[in-house]
Amino acid sequence: MNKNISTFIGCDGDYAPAKIVLCGAPYDSTTSFRPGARFGSNAMRQESQGLETYSPYQDKDLSQCALFDAGDLELPFGNSRKALDIIRDFSAGILQEGKIPCLIGGEHLISLGGIEAAAACHPQLHIVHFDAHMDMRDDYLGERLSHATVMRRAYDLVGPGRIFQLGIRSGDKEEFTWSQNRTYVHKFDLKGLDEILPLLAEKPIYLTLDLDVLDPSVFPGTGTPEAGGVSFTALLEALIKLSSLQIIAFDINELAPIYDASGASTAVACKLLREMLLAYS
Amino acid sequence: MNKNISTFIGCDGDYAPAKIVLCGAPYDSTTSFRPGARFGSNAMRQESQGLETYSPYQDKDLSQCALFDAGDLELPFGNSRKALDIIRDFSAGILQEGKIPCLIGGEHLISLGGIEAAAACHPQLHIVHFDAHMDMRDDYLGERLSHATVMRRAYDLVGPGRIFQLGIRSGDKEEFTWSQNRTYVHKFDLKGLDEILPLLAEKPIYLTLDLDVLDPSVFPGTGTPEAGGVSFTALLEALIKLSSLQIIAFDINELAPIYDASGASTAVACKLLREMLLAYS
Amino acid sequence: MNKNISTFIGCDGDYAPAKIVLCGAPYDSTTSFRPGARFGSNAMRQESQGLETYSPYQDKDLSQCALFDAGDLELPFGNSRKALDIIRDFSAGILQEGKIPCLIGGEHLISLGGIEAAAACHPQLHIVHFDAHMDMRDDYLGERLSHATVMRRAYDLVGPGRIFQLGIRSGDKEEFTWSQNRTYVHKFDLKGLDEILPLLAEKPIYLTLDLDVLDPSVFPGTGTPEAGGVSFTALLEALIKLSSLQIIAFDINELAPIYDASGASTAVACKLLREMLLAYS
Amino acid sequence: MNKNISTFIGCDGDYAPAKIVLCGAPYDSTTSFRPGARFGSNAMRQESQGLETYSPYQDKDLSQCALFDAGDLELPFGNSRKALDIIRDFSAGILQEGKIPCLIGGEHLISLGGIEAAAACHPQLHIVHFDAHMDMRDDYLGERLSHATVMRRAYDLVGPGRIFQLGIRSGDKEEFTWSQNRTYVHKFDLKGLDEILPLLAEKPIYLTLDLDVLDPSVFPGTGTPEAGGVSFTALLEALIKLSSLQIIAFDINELAPIYDASGASTAVACKLLREMLLAYS
Amino acid sequence: MNKNISTFIGCDGDYAPAKIVLCGAPYDSTTSFRPGARFGSNAMRQESQGLETYSPYQDKDLSQCALFDAGDLELPFGNSRKALDIIRDFSAGILQEGKIPCLIGGEHLISLGGIEAAAACHPQLHIVHFDAHMDMRDDYLGERLSHATVMRRAYDLVGPGRIFQLGIRSGDKEEFTWSQNRTYVHKFDLKGLDEILPLLAEKPIYLTLDLDVLDPSVFPGTGTPEAGGVSFTALLEALIKLSSLQIIAFDINELAPIYDASGASTAVACKLLREMLLAYS
Amino acid sequence: MNKNISTFIGCDGDYAPAKIVLCGAPYDSTTSFRPGARFGSNAMRQESQGLETYSPYQDKDLSQCALFDAGDLELPFGNSRKALDIIRDFSAGILQEGKIPCLIGGEHLISLGGIEAAAACHPQLHIVHFDAHMDMRDDYLGERLSHATVMRRAYDLVGPGRIFQLGIRSGDKEEFTWSQNRTYVHKFDLKGLDEILPLLAEKPIYLTLDLDVLDPSVFPGTGTPEAGGVSFTALLEALIKLSSLQIIAFDINELAPIYDASGASTAVACKLLREMLLAYS
Repeated sequence: MNKNISTFIGCDGDYAPAKIVLCGAPYDSTTSFRPGARFGSNAMRQESQGLETYSPYQDKDLSQCALFDAGDLELPFGNSRKALDIIRDFSAGILQEGKIPCLIGGEHLISLGGIEAAAACHPQLHIVHFDAHMDMRDDYLGERLSHATVMRRAYDLVGPGRIFQLGIRSGDKEEFTWSQNRTYVHKFDLKGLDEILPLLAEKPIYLTLDLDVLDPSVFPGTGTPEAGGVSFTALLEALIKLSSLQIIAFDINELAPIYDASGASTAVACKLLREMLLAYS
Repeated sequence: MNKNISTFIGCDGDYAPAKIVLCGAPYDSTTSFRPGARFGSNAMRQESQGLETYSPYQDKDLSQCALFDAGDLELPFGNSRKALDIIRDFSAGILQEGKIPCLIGGEHLISLGGIEAAAACHPQLHIVHFDAHMDMRDDYLGERLSHATVMRRAYDLVGPGRIFQLGIRSGDKEEFTWSQNRTYVHKFDLKGLDEILPLLAEKPIYLTLDLDVLDPSVFPGTGTPEAGGVSFTALLEALIKLSSLQIIAFDINELAPIYDASGASTAVACKLLREMLLAYS
Repeated sequence: MNKNISTFIGCDGDYAPAKIVLCGAPYDSTTSFRPGARFGSNAMRQESQGLETYSPYQDKDLSQCALFDAGDLELPFGNSRKALDIIRDFSAGILQEGKIPCLIGGEHLISLGGIEAAAACHPQLHIVHFDAHMDMRDDYLGERLSHATVMRRAYDLVGPGRIFQLGIRSGDKEEFTWSQNRTYVHKFDLKGLDEILPLLAEKPIYLTLDLDVLDPSVFPGTGTPEAGGVSFTALLEALIKLSSLQIIAFDINELAPIYDASGASTAVACKLLREMLLAYS
Repeated sequence: MNKNISTFIGCDGDYAPAKIVLCGAPYDSTTSFRPGARFGSNAMRQESQGLETYSPYQDKDLSQCALFDAGDLELPFGNSRKALDIIRDFSAGILQEGKIPCLIGGEHLISLGGIEAAAACHPQLHIVHFDAHMDMRDDYLGERLSHATVMRRAYDLVGPGRIFQLGIRSGDKEEFTWSQNRTYVHKFDLKGLDEILPLLAEKPIYLTLDLDVLDPSVFPGTGTPEAGGVSFTALLEALIKLSSLQIIAFDINELAPIYDASGASTAVACKLLREMLLAYS
Repeated sequence: MNKNISTFIGCDGDYAPAKIVLCGAPYDSTTSFRPGARFGSNAMRQESQGLETYSPYQDKDLSQCALFDAGDLELPFGNSRKALDIIRDFSAGILQEGKIPCLIGGEHLISLGGIEAAAACHPQLHIVHFDAHMDMRDDYLGERLSHATVMRRAYDLVGPGRIFQLGIRSGDKEEFTWSQNRTYVHKFDLKGLDEILPLLAEKPIYLTLDLDVLDPSVFPGTGTPEAGGVSFTALLEALIKLSSLQIIAFDINELAPIYDASGASTAVACKLLREMLLAYS
Repeated sequence: MNKNISTFIGCDGDYAPAKIVLCGAPYDSTTSFRPGARFGSNAMRQESQGLETYSPYQDKDLSQCALFDAGDLELPFGNSRKALDIIRDFSAGILQEGKIPCLIGGEHLISLGGIEAAAACHPQLHIVHFDAHMDMRDDYLGERLSHATVMRRAYDLVGPGRIFQLGIRSGDKEEFTWSQNRTYVHKFDLKGLDEILPLLAEKPIYLTLDLDVLDPSVFPGTGTPEAGGVSFTALLEALIKLSSLQIIAFDINELAPIYDASGASTAVACKLLREMLLAYS
């Protein structure tokens, strides 16, 4: 008799042949407003049972893909550097086997672990960043490791001209000013994507998706909902377009199920992850 | 002194002159994911008190229509065939008096009772189906009567070329394949409507509206929210356009109030029902 | 050591230099359907802590403005006239010092206090009214002071040709009929704004924003959600356009936090208020 | 075909033979903290469908009683005196036919309408008052008609020595002081009941039950939960004991369903009402 | 790398040595009032992560026990007999290996599958039944398989004098009458337990725990909360006392997480299950 | 005109004469299960407006006390040591002026800041600890500063025989074993209090109240509800008894408003704080 296995739908294959390895990163200790993203990965596994494995958008089925769900990492709340080390080391192991790590947050800071592993492995790493927020502060209340500084730390690793930020609609004035000439910033929507795709061709890409890039009407279940975001359809199209690039690692983060009374936000996150798995595997 | 009467707003007329007869079908025993649609009809009656009887969209008022609310049927949970028999017999009685039955779900399976009655009465019956889901499985975990098989059972009754499905964005691959050449399927939105209206002219039409055709941002209060749906305005326009056809029966289903913390989903359902009553009476 | 100060974000300046003075009006006794707007102003102060002071839309920061938050008025529940007197007298005091009062509801009736003060001060007062509802009944269940009559009472003060209503999609037939030739009414969206801006140039303007003008997908957290409303972006654009006029007083009302399980409605209200403060100061 | 009748369970008899007549009083305009009690009567009718008609406590069944549910009164929000007049006149009509009115709140102020009718009909009226709060202020923010003054207004009608208050655990110091020598007050629990039953024998009794006398663990669904209240069992026993008196009218109030996420508070209120109907008919 | 395993806390041992085998039975299709118990077993696995494995009540630790969590059965919604067959066959397999099956509901009907297996295996089977409800109807709206008939069907299997019902406080009059001389019934609390323990000594016992035997203040998260129930401490003591008997199978059912906004009901259920596992293994 | 002041009810006096100084410590970064306690202090200030200043339990009024509410400290999420330093320094300042600091959590770890200040000031410091949990781990997932280690760190400061833990009903076996002969532990309830009061007479006492010592029926609104706790009345009596001791500092923590859908938990916390302020000032 088998033990109870719990995976994201369609991700119940074996590890060896897997092309993408999913992993939850349940950490939210630096969230400055409303915590709860730590429960995002688990909620997505549960609610994915209400989803079909087949996508009419891409006419593909998860059963055709080689996917492995490794469960959640055990991360120490209140110690960001140690948590990031665990995420980085896990991601590095996946990358070294030629597989694609897919991190499921947790708060946005968890992306830094994945980016550190990817940058170590791929010196030419470029980053595509979909988010409502700049996340480009140098510190937040004195802390250098924070959901509000994560892209600044990523910049420290990859340097100028390597980060492409789309959908941004919140930040302090200094973040916007500082980013000029250092990163590519497209405010408010994802329309800048076509413009940058040629620049990213044949580069190794880390894709980080902060779900609050979506409009709060579509995705209220997050710690800091920011009005004026993109639609589900616009985001889905953008994510599918990115399949023409060489995505070597990606993440999806900032679902906070406690703020998702209807379950609709979790369902949105699950469908987007299904589409990303289909597109990048 | 009168007993306490509880009707959908503006539906407090007498039976004899009524053109449309409303009836709740509080059944959700086959719901495979999140149940709760059984409370939909009752919630709509209560929340309709916050609605105006006048529609600025159609410049009509419910007070000008002949409408009767017969309350909820008593349906045996866990016995789908018996529940459908009760719905079918009730609907048949309404149809035989030349009135239009309007069923309020409940889960989508309840439509089958209405369709059985309508098909018996109108051999030329055609079906317009607005939904996020195909509902075209032949069985679901071995059960042939299920919310996931309801349109397949309807197909068994009316045969090829008679079912028109719009807004569909979820199903397994087999459902999409099977439906080719058997039903008309327009995926993702309702734009196919203009194309099919001529085909439906002068046919007796059963209209079944699964409210999850709406985007979950508009209608989160349902058992299986499917991202990427249609807007309220698009659905409203489509429903009003259908008034040019000969609607002989219709239903509205899959509101699950427990997932509607704000009440906005119930309010949406009420307004759509108001517009349908104004348009089809 | 200082007492605990609680203001809307960025509104912690001193009174004397302030150009705009915020004030909560926590009253909802005439709400006919679902009460709770009395907690709107307080919720906005709390949740504004999750907002940035900088707007990438207008490239301005609240720290550059002169803003004072006077807290909530103490209003007697169940006595509308007395509550309005308190609101009117407070607003009059602000206006007399050449400052702009900004009232935060509460239900929509509270606007009448502000309008009474503004009309007394500015005989040429014109009113811009964004709302889902006409609010033009002469009485509601016999009461002449009600959220459903507030614009009719405003009309009694300013007379024909002075009220401009946009986004309206609910009311009884009589309200729509009565308003013809008396007020400017643009139904369903805000597209009529460009047409009326020239008529309002150089007039003293009272702007009243009933947040239920927004679509319930964007703003479910209100007593009477009305499907078919405007998007956040459309409303934001309209509010910024109004900065070309002479706004002498304004209000924002009908947030009912109890119906905002995710907090997204409160966040929307906060961002709109931030943009109004930046635009009109 | 019959219109949809909605009554409290087991109260679907005819008016003429009825011994008790139920009536909802959906008013909460003077609630000073969290409104919502206006939806109490309706929620109780709906949720009573989950209740049995048989009581194992009293070994009686509602089907043996003569009960009529007259539905909700239409009350003007924001005009307390007019609302009370409607309640009073309705109650007077019931009393004049020798029946027992049972008012379902609504906020506690609604009791005053019932007490006015009862006092007019029965000059020897005594009042039994179960509540967490004294409700003995002379005015509240200047208003003399308020949930916080309702027992003071009752005192104005019946005079000293006629009001018996049990379970009280909240009020300002003046209320407690004033009540000494004017009313009987038993703080914190209902243990004083045995002591007062002899004093009330053969007197006409109005029983007013503010459900917040219950501990918030048992009954969280109310506007102002007060820790330290009585248990369900203790209240049930007290209510059954009162059946030895001549209850000529009674009410049950202050259920606010919006604060009852689990439905358990509404279920408690329904069971208590069932027991009162069985005990007093 | 291992797949993601999800078990009730401390139940991650292997099957072969296990003394108790847990299994979820996610079925609630016959629930007549508020469904949702289908999500009970899964919620308990998730929330058990907030629980300690050590019990200070029994001074034992789950790590000392041999426990295996087999996950959830796949049950066809809307077909009660087929669902019960699956539960029965699974339980029979566990019993035949000399292990104790522990079923986690789901609605109370699921117990029948376990009882059928246990009665087939142990002709002397006796049943201990903790519940708010009699569940002794012969049919419910014509259905013989229902949460409201489950103990009647159990009686059909084991006959008179074998069922011991405690905590009962709801049912129709016929259920109470019929049970006289057929089953042992102790109403309202669990105090009758000491009296019956001697009668049950050395008998094979099936223990069925409907969690609504608890007072709704302790356990609001259930479909039909019944005021007047037992305390957590009383139930815990009773469950531990039963460890002196020969429990050969048991279940715990009727947690409906959707009605458990705070999570406290799920936490109660988890702690009770921990104590039962410690007591009966 | 004054800025908006927001204090706990009755705590709006000046600093200089104040005997007790309230201060919020909104930190919850080490919470291992469900975060959200960071919003506890603010929720208590808001909801305290529904509370009376007068206590019928102690026949005292907050208006008679000298109380100052200093608002919330600004604490860096994700850096526990820095947060504790801020809390310690603030508390030390209050203690040095001969006033009593009252910390409002936040998670339980915040107590350590207060205890560090108190131990530095009072070498004879004794600690009274009401809690469901031992909190005596030496580290938690490698972290030495955690809500689960807070009393162990306190022990490091004050040494054996100085900590008195009551109401404890959860921990791992090692915590219980370790504490023997090191601290006084009374499991499950507060009945041990009379026994220890003589031992504590004339000692400087730090009182730390983790609200989850209450039964979850009374206080569901917390991160880790533990069934089997104490009643409100038992806790209130214990807190009042402690007024015979020399309380030199105290805290109240672990209210997580997001899990308090009804508001009843927040109301309980507010009433307990009122009684503590009345008892210890």
